[in-house]
Amino acid sequence: MTTTPVLPETMRVSQLDAAHNVRLTERPVPTPGPREVLVRVAAVGVCGSDTHYYEHGRIGPFVVAAPLVLGHEASGTIVAVGSGVDAARIGSRVSIEPQKPCRACEQCKAGRYNLCAAMEFFATPPIDGAFAEYVLIEQDFAHDVPDSISDASAALVEPLSVGIAACRKAEVTAGSRVLIAGAGPIGVITAQVARAFGAVEVHISDVSEPRLAFALQHGATHAHLAGAPLEHLAVDAFIDASGAAPAIRAGIPAVRPAGRVILVGLGADSLEMPVNLIQNNELWVTGVFRYANTWPTAIALLANGSVNLDDLVTGSFGLDEVEAALTASRDGASMKTIVTPAS
Amino acid sequence: MTTTPVLPETMRVSQLDAAHNVRLTERPVPTPGPREVLVRVAAVGVCGSDTHYYEHGRIGPFVVAAPLVLGHEASGTIVAVGSGVDAARIGSRVSIEPQKPCRACEQCKAGRYNLCAAMEFFATPPIDGAFAEYVLIEQDFAHDVPDSISDASAALVEPLSVGIAACRKAEVTAGSRVLIAGAGPIGVITAQVARAFGAVEVHISDVSEPRLAFALQHGATHAHLAGAPLEHLAVDAFIDASGAAPAIRAGIPAVRPAGRVILVGLGADSLEMPVNLIQNNELWVTGVFRYANTWPTAIALLANGSVNLDDLVTGSFGLDEVEAALTASRDGASMKTIVTPAS
Amino acid sequence: MTTTPVLPETMRVSQLDAAHNVRLTERPVPTPGPREVLVRVAAVGVCGSDTHYYEHGRIGPFVVAAPLVLGHEASGTIVAVGSGVDAARIGSRVSIEPQKPCRACEQCKAGRYNLCAAMEFFATPPIDGAFAEYVLIEQDFAHDVPDSISDASAALVEPLSVGIAACRKAEVTAGSRVLIAGAGPIGVITAQVARAFGAVEVHISDVSEPRLAFALQHGATHAHLAGAPLEHLAVDAFIDASGAAPAIRAGIPAVRPAGRVILVGLGADSLEMPVNLIQNNELWVTGVFRYANTWPTAIALLANGSVNLDDLVTGSFGLDEVEAALTASRDGASMKTIVTPAS
Amino acid sequence: MTTTPVLPETMRVSQLDAAHNVRLTERPVPTPGPREVLVRVAAVGVCGSDTHYYEHGRIGPFVVAAPLVLGHEASGTIVAVGSGVDAARIGSRVSIEPQKPCRACEQCKAGRYNLCAAMEFFATPPIDGAFAEYVLIEQDFAHDVPDSISDASAALVEPLSVGIAACRKAEVTAGSRVLIAGAGPIGVITAQVARAFGAVEVHISDVSEPRLAFALQHGATHAHLAGAPLEHLAVDAFIDASGAAPAIRAGIPAVRPAGRVILVGLGADSLEMPVNLIQNNELWVTGVFRYANTWPTAIALLANGSVNLDDLVTGSFGLDEVEAALTASRDGASMKTIVTPAS
Repeated sequence: MTTTPVLPETMRVSQLDAAHNVRLTERPVPTPGPREVLVRVAAVGVCGSDTHYYEHGRIGPFVVAAPLVLGHEASGTIVAVGSGVDAARIGSRVSIEPQKPCRACEQCKAGRYNLCAAMEFFATPPIDGAFAEYVLIEQDFAHDVPDSISDASAALVEPLSVGIAACRKAEVTAGSRVLIAGAGPIGVITAQVARAFGAVEVHISDVSEPRLAFALQHGATHAHLAGAPLEHLAVDAFIDASGAAPAIRAGIPAVRPAGRVILVGLGADSLEMPVNLIQNNELWVTGVFRYANTWPTAIALLANGSVNLDDLVTGSFGLDEVEAALTASRDGASMKTIVTPAS
Repeated sequence: MTTTPVLPETMRVSQLDAAHNVRLTERPVPTPGPREVLVRVAAVGVCGSDTHYYEHGRIGPFVVAAPLVLGHEASGTIVAVGSGVDAARIGSRVSIEPQKPCRACEQCKAGRYNLCAAMEFFATPPIDGAFAEYVLIEQDFAHDVPDSISDASAALVEPLSVGIAACRKAEVTAGSRVLIAGAGPIGVITAQVARAFGAVEVHISDVSEPRLAFALQHGATHAHLAGAPLEHLAVDAFIDASGAAPAIRAGIPAVRPAGRVILVGLGADSLEMPVNLIQNNELWVTGVFRYANTWPTAIALLANGSVNLDDLVTGSFGLDEVEAALTASRDGASMKTIVTPAS
Repeated sequence: MTTTPVLPETMRVSQLDAAHNVRLTERPVPTPGPREVLVRVAAVGVCGSDTHYYEHGRIGPFVVAAPLVLGHEASGTIVAVGSGVDAARIGSRVSIEPQKPCRACEQCKAGRYNLCAAMEFFATPPIDGAFAEYVLIEQDFAHDVPDSISDASAALVEPLSVGIAACRKAEVTAGSRVLIAGAGPIGVITAQVARAFGAVEVHISDVSEPRLAFALQHGATHAHLAGAPLEHLAVDAFIDASGAAPAIRAGIPAVRPAGRVILVGLGADSLEMPVNLIQNNELWVTGVFRYANTWPTAIALLANGSVNLDDLVTGSFGLDEVEAALTASRDGASMKTIVTPAS
Repeated sequence: MTTTPVLPETMRVSQLDAAHNVRLTERPVPTPGPREVLVRVAAVGVCGSDTHYYEHGRIGPFVVAAPLVLGHEASGTIVAVGSGVDAARIGSRVSIEPQKPCRACEQCKAGRYNLCAAMEFFATPPIDGAFAEYVLIEQDFAHDVPDSISDASAALVEPLSVGIAACRKAEVTAGSRVLIAGAGPIGVITAQVARAFGAVEVHISDVSEPRLAFALQHGATHAHLAGAPLEHLAVDAFIDASGAAPAIRAGIPAVRPAGRVILVGLGADSLEMPVNLIQNNELWVTGVFRYANTWPTAIALLANGSVNLDDLVTGSFGLDEVEAALTASRDGASMKTIVTPAS
């Protein structure tokens, strides 16, 4: 291992012991193995899944059985490297792609490493996340960011990647007309991404007028309050970022024949779907499960200003305030909360 | 119009006046307009939709309000041509692609003319079908067939096209592993088509053991009685040719990540779908609505023996026996019934 | 035919009798047939092919054997409609897509009508073009434009479509890095289009520094004087808009593995190509032959300001000044010349 | 390392010291590292590249500067496994995919690991190949084969993979019409593969009548002696397996508009290409550089009999006869020669 002069032996970590039970602990600073880097964590975005683990102690089959470190939207600075990594990378500011695929299965080798069955993903039991002063990541999943990108934005490359994955699957391109359901962080980010992909109309729907107003200032070109008729839109693609059954069922009829329906938001396991529309209009329906090969695109869009994430940050908390960060989203005006472990 | 010497002035037509009310009538032989050909009809396959119109007088929004000629799987011989058509085509044996798109809308010009909103399709109110001695069709939708293809097979190019459309959407290719639900005519044809596309495993499921046995002799490599576990199959694509909700819900978990689900069979307008699987495995789900640009492929596969349709014919009826033809499928042993208008 | 009150019986037309021989003549105003519209021509862009016909009397196998009306980049106002066209379209400002495919061949029905072997294309012998007060076009090839788009820009939707066709084939998308050779009208337009498709780097090369300077103000992000090393760029796509062999051979090594090379510029029929690079890097090489299904996208990009074409106009001429218009491009400072037949 | 009881300490290896200088040596049996397996080599196909190294001591920039073990088409049995590999794999018969990509670069993570710039490939300086009793390979590049596949065929999965890669790029599918130039091993294998992908017409061209006759018995449907007109064929794809400039220039005009040209054969670095055809017909031209993700498909096609490789074997040699094996192809009747190191 090559490292900077003064690495401490221990670090502060915020761990979830059980639902509603977060506390600060001390752990050894980990040592990078082959092809790994050690990152001093600058910023971590709070995701709905973090909040869900905090509130319920589980997400579906993933149960918090042992203490779990939350946080998977992270940025920081490389402070040490393992064998096989160029020591010149020490000091680099990076955005962390918080996954470790096996690289050897059919999905990995086909370029869809997000679907790797052996994936180790940050903040998903039993893999720890980034609410810690230091984290390890394989060197090619620590992506350099230019100085023009803030720590918060570098952390939010993660949700930005979700929007990119969605727009790729939706085949958004120059001239596209897109409908997005849900004007939360993912919806607003996806609106910006759709514009960056060349969409000329980005419709967004939500139950909240303030959220719609915010979206109109951040990528969306048209806003629709939930319940408004959408069928006449005949968009090329509908991206659901709400996970809400009524929104999904309202959005599908708004898609032109041969258009695409991309389910990003997580909701019920099972959903009543209008298969007659899918069949008669030959719609393509799929979902987004994380992302693969999105970081370079995301960083490029941030760097040239096509996407703005700093505007989404509505709160910032220290590592000793993770509980407050996790519950900040209860406030309807909250958009995106940041934890700053190493500040 | 250029024509053969002796065209009669009138022809026999079998028309559906209302549900359960089919009768033979006399109508004028139509005259081909510009770019049209007149076909003396040799064979017409009976489709489930024909039977459905006979039994119920409607299919969803399509109501038999005026007398309707059924039959849309047809072959025959060109006996007259309209302006702009080479008279040398008279005498050609053809398979009829029973649709007339507008050729000018966005879908038509994008190569998806099956999704044309102005489509005029045989045997769909108010457009008449092919249970008649003569029918008109635009010249490029009358596809020449070699003599090695029988009249019946030339008619069955229509359901064969459905199988081709399904396998294209399913991206079946050399080495593919495919699951087909439903061992009726479409399922069995699709099994053969999947093999012709290079599939090495073609699993088929059905409630009927005799149907499964037949399928195993006609394209399928593995048979599964309904209810058998399928999840372990991890197929590249699942094609539903049953329209049955339980079959669809059993098939989706059998698809590998990033695989495809193609809904061909018609069932309920709305269906409870496992969106968690669609999302977590990034499955692509779509439907097949008829077909576009399939006839040349279908005829080539028939001509070189990759697909055999003659084996599927379980009954043949004259134009005065259409009612018997329409009800033949009540017999469980029936696979595909042919009406021979011009014999 | 439905028409506006006062259509004259004759119109002025500028015709090319032979190389270097252009003159104004009087012809009958044509009458729209079924599905056609008559357009009073507002603006026509001069293309390099027009100039080539003027200078040489031919382009490859296409010889000006009879008087030919040049001009295929045209806009105007619908003043009469044939049968089957909604009379409400009279008065609409339109951009003309100057082609008439057969709509029935394999290429047309597959969505690639630009490759139709029976194509009738404006200003290509023996089909007349738009240097005339009135022209006919099939109704779906007369595309409505909003008032925010000028007559000149509406005419220049044609070269804009070439840029769109190129960027589609190049698979330009958000984050792409693109190299364009040639900073003439097509190169500059393509640079803007690439940006509209989400490209973050648009490199352009040319022999002319003023042209490079202009390009940098209109879409390009980096300029390279011909002869500068490009190999290190590792762009995702290289689009040649120069037709110059040295530019093409300099561009291909600049493409990353699995990248794309799109040949737009016309040069020699045959060219020495680095097949070892094409093979070892599995580059995809193709050309652009006109366009299909680009007008709606082009108009949308113009309407929302993603692309600016008015800036490219460096000269405007009346119908009696076509010769001057055709030779204006001899001036190196000329970018795009417009003829205004109906003004 | 887990291993079978009786691994020797040394093994026989056939190494190329310089052009025309092959000799048998003794080397230590290597030890599998993490994720590696040790394979006792049963069969190795001789490739044109092996012969080229033998004859010239180099291929382009790859120079035999130190002793090099040739042979990259190999099969055998796993006899030992490194850490992280299931010991149950010992005893498995495998086909070796002879490449070791970095798994971390952009190309690897996009599913195109064959384009990895850090690739270590068998029998390409300085990486040794398989003319040895034992070789190491990463566990996921040792693909299990069923007993129905012979050792020779399991070795020839390598050239079979080239044919699969070519047919994938050519988008060969059911009903395709394909032209292949060159009826050597790759051409004949590709003909079979094209049929397995559903091609209904497989034209093959060559200068040798006996080779054409052989091809007609192994996949090809039509044979054309070099020089015969091909332009009328209008095939969907042309795959060059000859590397010969005249064959390539004769094949390109035989492709229909929007068809594909796949360059597999290696010839000159630079080639005069008909860019007017590429442009006017919007042909897609690319090359095949090895393969990625082909082994499972290849093994499936062999296992179900879609492809027969045993018929191609025209000679078999021991490890002490490698020189004879390398020169066997001088005999025009030779198709594919096998070396059997461990017999």
